[in-house]
Amino acid sequence: MTDSDDEGSSTGEPDYHLTEDFGSTGEAGEEDDSGTRSASARTASTDAEIDREGGEHGESTESTPVLYELQDGCTVDDVEEGEVYRGTVNATVEYGAFVSLNSSVSGLVHESSITEPMEVGEDVKVRVSDVKADGDVELVPVYMHDYDVETVESTVEVASPEIEDLGEHEGSRVAVEGRVKKIRQTSGPTLFTLEDTTGTVEAAAFEAAGVRAYPEVTEGDVVEVTGEVEPHDGDLQIEARSLVVLEGDDAAAFEERVDEALLERAEPPELQPLVDSTVLQELYPELREVAQAIRRAVHEERPIVVRHHADADGIGGGVAVERAVLELVDDVNDDPDAGYHLFNRMPSKAPFYEMEDLTRDLTGALRDHERHGHPLPLLLLIDNGSTEEDIPAYEIADAYDIPVYVVDHHSPDEAVEEHVEAHVNPYRVGGDYAVTSGMICTELARLVNPDVEDEIRHVPAVCGNADRSEADAMEDYLELALREGYSSDDVEAISKALDYESFHLKYNDGRHLVDHILDVVDNTAHVDLVDRLSTQADEAFERQKSAAVPAVERKELDNGVLFCRFDVENHTQKFTFPGPGKTTGAVHDEIVEEQDRAVVTVGYGPDFCVVRGHGVEIDIPEIISELQVEVKGAAVDGGGHLVVGTVKFVQGLRERVLEAFESKVEEAPLKK
Amino acid sequence: MTDSDDEGSSTGEPDYHLTEDFGSTGEAGEEDDSGTRSASARTASTDAEIDREGGEHGESTESTPVLYELQDGCTVDDVEEGEVYRGTVNATVEYGAFVSLNSSVSGLVHESSITEPMEVGEDVKVRVSDVKADGDVELVPVYMHDYDVETVESTVEVASPEIEDLGEHEGSRVAVEGRVKKIRQTSGPTLFTLEDTTGTVEAAAFEAAGVRAYPEVTEGDVVEVTGEVEPHDGDLQIEARSLVVLEGDDAAAFEERVDEALLERAEPPELQPLVDSTVLQELYPELREVAQAIRRAVHEERPIVVRHHADADGIGGGVAVERAVLELVDDVNDDPDAGYHLFNRMPSKAPFYEMEDLTRDLTGALRDHERHGHPLPLLLLIDNGSTEEDIPAYEIADAYDIPVYVVDHHSPDEAVEEHVEAHVNPYRVGGDYAVTSGMICTELARLVNPDVEDEIRHVPAVCGNADRSEADAMEDYLELALREGYSSDDVEAISKALDYESFHLKYNDGRHLVDHILDVVDNTAHVDLVDRLSTQADEAFERQKSAAVPAVERKELDNGVLFCRFDVENHTQKFTFPGPGKTTGAVHDEIVEEQDRAVVTVGYGPDFCVVRGHGVEIDIPEIISELQVEVKGAAVDGGGHLVVGTVKFVQGLRERVLEAFESKVEEAPLKK
Amino acid sequence: MTDSDDEGSSTGEPDYHLTEDFGSTGEAGEEDDSGTRSASARTASTDAEIDREGGEHGESTESTPVLYELQDGCTVDDVEEGEVYRGTVNATVEYGAFVSLNSSVSGLVHESSITEPMEVGEDVKVRVSDVKADGDVELVPVYMHDYDVETVESTVEVASPEIEDLGEHEGSRVAVEGRVKKIRQTSGPTLFTLEDTTGTVEAAAFEAAGVRAYPEVTEGDVVEVTGEVEPHDGDLQIEARSLVVLEGDDAAAFEERVDEALLERAEPPELQPLVDSTVLQELYPELREVAQAIRRAVHEERPIVVRHHADADGIGGGVAVERAVLELVDDVNDDPDAGYHLFNRMPSKAPFYEMEDLTRDLTGALRDHERHGHPLPLLLLIDNGSTEEDIPAYEIADAYDIPVYVVDHHSPDEAVEEHVEAHVNPYRVGGDYAVTSGMICTELARLVNPDVEDEIRHVPAVCGNADRSEADAMEDYLELALREGYSSDDVEAISKALDYESFHLKYNDGRHLVDHILDVVDNTAHVDLVDRLSTQADEAFERQKSAAVPAVERKELDNGVLFCRFDVENHTQKFTFPGPGKTTGAVHDEIVEEQDRAVVTVGYGPDFCVVRGHGVEIDIPEIISELQVEVKGAAVDGGGHLVVGTVKFVQGLRERVLEAFESKVEEAPLKK
Repeated sequence: MTDSDDEGSSTGEPDYHLTEDFGSTGEAGEEDDSGTRSASARTASTDAEIDREGGEHGESTESTPVLYELQDGCTVDDVEEGEVYRGTVNATVEYGAFVSLNSSVSGLVHESSITEPMEVGEDVKVRVSDVKADGDVELVPVYMHDYDVETVESTVEVASPEIEDLGEHEGSRVAVEGRVKKIRQTSGPTLFTLEDTTGTVEAAAFEAAGVRAYPEVTEGDVVEVTGEVEPHDGDLQIEARSLVVLEGDDAAAFEERVDEALLERAEPPELQPLVDSTVLQELYPELREVAQAIRRAVHEERPIVVRHHADADGIGGGVAVERAVLELVDDVNDDPDAGYHLFNRMPSKAPFYEMEDLTRDLTGALRDHERHGHPLPLLLLIDNGSTEEDIPAYEIADAYDIPVYVVDHHSPDEAVEEHVEAHVNPYRVGGDYAVTSGMICTELARLVNPDVEDEIRHVPAVCGNADRSEADAMEDYLELALREGYSSDDVEAISKALDYESFHLKYNDGRHLVDHILDVVDNTAHVDLVDRLSTQADEAFERQKSAAVPAVERKELDNGVLFCRFDVENHTQKFTFPGPGKTTGAVHDEIVEEQDRAVVTVGYGPDFCVVRGHGVEIDIPEIISELQVEVKGAAVDGGGHLVVGTVKFVQGLRERVLEAFESKVEEAPLKK
Repeated sequence: MTDSDDEGSSTGEPDYHLTEDFGSTGEAGEEDDSGTRSASARTASTDAEIDREGGEHGESTESTPVLYELQDGCTVDDVEEGEVYRGTVNATVEYGAFVSLNSSVSGLVHESSITEPMEVGEDVKVRVSDVKADGDVELVPVYMHDYDVETVESTVEVASPEIEDLGEHEGSRVAVEGRVKKIRQTSGPTLFTLEDTTGTVEAAAFEAAGVRAYPEVTEGDVVEVTGEVEPHDGDLQIEARSLVVLEGDDAAAFEERVDEALLERAEPPELQPLVDSTVLQELYPELREVAQAIRRAVHEERPIVVRHHADADGIGGGVAVERAVLELVDDVNDDPDAGYHLFNRMPSKAPFYEMEDLTRDLTGALRDHERHGHPLPLLLLIDNGSTEEDIPAYEIADAYDIPVYVVDHHSPDEAVEEHVEAHVNPYRVGGDYAVTSGMICTELARLVNPDVEDEIRHVPAVCGNADRSEADAMEDYLELALREGYSSDDVEAISKALDYESFHLKYNDGRHLVDHILDVVDNTAHVDLVDRLSTQADEAFERQKSAAVPAVERKELDNGVLFCRFDVENHTQKFTFPGPGKTTGAVHDEIVEEQDRAVVTVGYGPDFCVVRGHGVEIDIPEIISELQVEVKGAAVDGGGHLVVGTVKFVQGLRERVLEAFESKVEEAPLKK
Repeated sequence: MTDSDDEGSSTGEPDYHLTEDFGSTGEAGEEDDSGTRSASARTASTDAEIDREGGEHGESTESTPVLYELQDGCTVDDVEEGEVYRGTVNATVEYGAFVSLNSSVSGLVHESSITEPMEVGEDVKVRVSDVKADGDVELVPVYMHDYDVETVESTVEVASPEIEDLGEHEGSRVAVEGRVKKIRQTSGPTLFTLEDTTGTVEAAAFEAAGVRAYPEVTEGDVVEVTGEVEPHDGDLQIEARSLVVLEGDDAAAFEERVDEALLERAEPPELQPLVDSTVLQELYPELREVAQAIRRAVHEERPIVVRHHADADGIGGGVAVERAVLELVDDVNDDPDAGYHLFNRMPSKAPFYEMEDLTRDLTGALRDHERHGHPLPLLLLIDNGSTEEDIPAYEIADAYDIPVYVVDHHSPDEAVEEHVEAHVNPYRVGGDYAVTSGMICTELARLVNPDVEDEIRHVPAVCGNADRSEADAMEDYLELALREGYSSDDVEAISKALDYESFHLKYNDGRHLVDHILDVVDNTAHVDLVDRLSTQADEAFERQKSAAVPAVERKELDNGVLFCRFDVENHTQKFTFPGPGKTTGAVHDEIVEEQDRAVVTVGYGPDFCVVRGHGVEIDIPEIISELQVEVKGAAVDGGGHLVVGTVKFVQGLRERVLEAFESKVEEAPLKK
């Protein structure tokens, strides 16, 4: 194909500014290595319409006339007087019709030159009769049968940098692809906030004062904006000359780049666990997956909801992750309040993720979605979430495609697996609850944001202390805490203080207060807080024990176990720290210490009992399964680890359940 | 009377621009048909002051001198050099005194021309000696005894359009009446947002940069603004030349127009119920009243508070109304958040509107009123509100003149009537609870906003299913749902899912979640949600029944009724779905199905019992009344329909109440 | 020292504008009486560098050359062409180096005149070769060995007014000291909001469009701004020429002035109690301290948290203080919403300040501190807070240095004293609970803000009525209420209405509703509200009594006391007004009225009993102490006054505690 030789044109020899590669196949939109889109100009197509016959002026000429197609991105500067362009009728008015040559250039066909009616939407061929100094374009309709089609691309060399590199193009025209994050109408131009994987920039498009430009563009669209980069209020702004919504492959390519960039940013750092532990090593790959999902959510501005067990291990794990996420959110977001909108940590009062919790989280998320445009959240359960009781909530989350991640060290139900994206649990790799959720979450926090490691290095020791971990890792974590300047007593006191305060926090996350107790954020109150809270906790334990211990009934079972039971609701102060579980534990510990033999302690309330065992091989979850079958009508339920757990039942059959439970204990072998 | 012949005036013959009708009686402010206020100029009064003697210049002339009174709305353009005007001393300064000729025109009397002291507030006659190019007016005091008084009205033809028609007057001067909705001081002019029945517009009044113009005007005032309509930031704005607070008849006339317009807009559409039902036909007139009140509230931006029974029927009814109101609020308001500020739906946990609910609603409303200027709300009770137990709350609402509307299908107490504006209840027109609240509220929603009919046409079937309606209307509503593509099973599943989720929502309205369950707003989660929630509900019923049924004590009464009782609190899981009421119902249904005879089932807790009857003619509300007298000290209370209800009593007399209740059942005749 | 005689200077004789006192020791910064800082100009130092030898031009001259030091506050107007100044290299650029002469004046040394490299931070001597019309300064480096040093202070007479007096300096340059409250970057200048003890003003500093000026300055810094006072948007603004952070003594002096001003403003008015009462007189000095702390907090914009007993006396006291504080907050703050941010009143459900309450208050305060920059609050406990049970919460508040103030009329524990800043309690000055918290708080409110006295004068009578005060002061307060137009019945009805509504408010403060009931804010609803609420309260009492009275067991004790006990939980409606305490009281009153003899009434629940005594000398707090020792394992606890109190215990030992309590009553002497 050749350039048009248009010497007979009434407007004289056009001053073509074709580039050398006009013979190419016109890979508009592709980027070369420098990030500059190859902006070659008129490119002949292989269009079947091409014909050797003369042009529309009826002149005898060797060359075929050319119909130019003005690509989007071209401006009026790319339009040549005298040439013929393909256009679309935009609007008809009394005095003529407006015909657009591309998304940003249009001109008037005066009614005097219209011989046949022009209809809106109709494709027409028009000759540019005049380009006025003010940019107005005058057109006349032409009728061409045989012509070559050539594509006109912008002759202005338009770089297409990523947003973060716009500074290098100040004063020049660029073509930037981005997602429209926000559209704001001012009394002057319309402002489009664009976002790509590298940053955000504002593009100002002016239709008329206070009139919405590009009304077809909506928030969320992927667009290409062409315009000059200019400083504005201390920032750079694109003065948009054209703004085109990308569709199909172009949009897909952008999405893919976004996705790749997200994946890259979401990639956790290459780390090893803080301590040498086979269990942690085994958990690490799945933990990296969780970290990646969290990092991705932060970069996508997807809210993260963390629900954790309301005890020191759960809080410690939750706070470690919170520190990591909040700092990352702050790095990624300009809004200093983003950490409050995009992250939400709350204790679950039940030892599982109840439908009530899911309902609260879900209705909040749907409201934020509808009202503020937030995506639905990622849900992370900590020290919770691995049992069958969690499945109802997971089913509903799944109806909304809300992804669920679990980090837990409770004995897991197989059935949970299919409902969650990842489930990091020592039991699943041959470990047990001695590697606590708080330990794993501290490792998770490092993978999410290694910058917070210094703040949280002592957290695993606190969590392990709270859950009486006897794992090897516990010793190493404690060693780390000692190196950070905490004594063993400090670690114990922090753990007690957290447990005690957690009782009073109820459904409150206590963001800053808990940070100060756990000493992950510097505050002069830390030492006094921990000292006073842990002392109050000690006193509270003494108070409850002084009422409970005298009420304990002791009985020697045939297998040699000392079976101890007491009414924990009738013989403690109700609604007071420590609650039935911790009180039963404290009573049990006192008996064990005093007796040094196999002991099972049962603190019972109207419709539950808390169980602690020592020196005997019981398996509480298994006993519960058996009682469910054996005690009809008692609605037996519950959970726990081997020798630590809770059994629930209907109040009316309490005595029968307790007796059946006692029989189970009596059948169990002692530990050697 | 004639024009003044003022040839001796130092400023020469004034170029009078009097209109032809200066002899009229000056009906300023009246509108002609075209909405243009007749803006005739100088109009002679029949003032007694008129005298044949010469003017103030002492010249012999046939005409009496004229004292002009410059009406508000006139500008400096209406002032003639050389003429004498009535004025009021505004301020005295070192170099003279300022005299105002009307609300917007004033001038300076230089101290050199003051021979007698002028006092602020004093009425004076002044000749206009000069009108400077910049609009400054110079005055000299004059002393006239005999003169004609003529009124000068603005010579500019001033249209007085409604706000929505201002576009037709761009560039012209208008006089617009409106209520001042907001006053905002900018660094330039003061901006008054005016509102009439057709829209809002901003009037900009400039006193001095950053200085409050018309400080006497406060938000809420009805004013007339005169000024030019000019485009501003893409909207029209009035550049105010004068702004006068309307009082007396003028203000009353405006208020009346507002009221009429409101009434007109509040008028519900002419519709018929979706199904053919005598009860609905009978209820329709009062239902229209409720719809009108709601529509009016929306147009007045009065908040609407809906409180409904926390079951599927109540939620369904509440959501139908919610959909209608929210869409109407969106139509009427620019603020996309208005639907969150102006509408509040919440479940009532009790089967009546408790003082706790009223207290929460009232304190919220008072706070919004004080803090954000919201009017006090309209209160609508759905599937609730028709019993004596609601009256305490109504009394307090009434102390604040908060209007209460009730749509309920529970057996009503007569005493409620005097406390509510309207009470739509099938019992009041010879129907019964088979026409459920959700059905009626769906009809109400259509009257509030017919645009939402498509979304909610299946809602009555869901509500009727939930309340086991056997009304004729139920079949028709079900037919409608089938036509919308829902199977009977779908309808049942939605109803179960709603009931189940409602248990977990507690005091949360669950706006979007409930929309998706009920399928009134499209969401892909709907099918999964309903499937999973209804399945979970079924399983939960099975769990509770498996504990409860073995605990049922059965007894054959003398009248042949099988009297079944069980401790619903001791033989179910507490605080778990289904609660005592639904569990008792499910147990009852199972017994009835198994026995096919007259059965009364009583599920009792410590201080209440739930009752379900079948095949026997008991009337629970009546039994309660009898027990109140017969069992002293038991504080018997409660409510319900004939064979479905709850009895409350003090815990210490439970057995006596249950026995007395059994006797009542034993006395009841069987149904044939 | 003498002025420089610089005739050989190439730039000619400088036009010195030295003041007469250039021989002084340069007390820059000191203020004379008129508040104008003595702005003497070039002041010779006694610098050791001074040398008799010739200047840098090597000319023979009698005078030593002078090196000028341009003080901060000087502008380019103070710079003389031809003179030599001490400077610091600011930045080096391709074409030279920028040297600053003081914090706001700098100039360019062109590279052509640089013979030796200049390093950033280096001290240099430069001659001013040119001051351009646009203020640009050209410098050349010079090398001087022997010279006198003279200080150049601004020759512009710069007043240093307080902010409220800036109006007197419009158009002039001032030097204002203030704390930077807020920094805001506009697209033009950077705006610093300055605050001193008299007001706030904005200083606009322009570095470049949209570029942050003085980036070293942060919010909270104390600075001196020098610049012109100009009108801007109707306010005054300082167009900053220099802005220097004050440190050391200067900052300390400012802080001291702020402190003094705060103390002065915090000083309560000189008043006497509304009634003549020895107890109030004795309490007055400490009450003034509390008032001063509150007033200071308001002026510092420190939030105030009030927690009060959830009964009429507590609410009345809380509301009196609330009225006083809110009006003061409104006076001090421009933000009309400040009263919602800076004041928070809430009832405590327990009769003490629980850890739950502290936790909620503290986490809220920490969040406001972190998120919104609020200082931690002042905590005021009303009708609460004087017992050992409050100490755990106080300990935690103290860890954050949150000051606690207590106004209570419950029998105080000595141990509380060390934890609170002030504790106003009639028991501490020989009074008792008859002078109620509401009375004392009304006096406190007057000291906080005497303007509200008219609104609250009747409050003490209401509070006293609620707590059945028989103090002498009560009669006087009632007299005051009567004078305000309330009858005794009105007072009683308001007190009942408050108590009743408080039951329904739960954790809600009910700000406006309570104001209307208590009639401290005009509202037409008041009369109806009180009438209906008090009637409902009466009916509710009758309902509970009708169930409870038949259940009372009466027993004649050996000491002649009629000992009455009943199960208040099993024989009343639970969770219904009146609760166990008030119901027991009402039952007791009925018995006393009927019997007219020594009566002790005990209303017991599962783990508590409420006690009321009449005609017998029991001391409930003391009995509790004894039972704690005597009934092991019962965890006895509680509190109260002599004959009014609550005993708590574990449910399992109820009967033993009640019997032990009965024995204590039997040992008590009757009152004569």
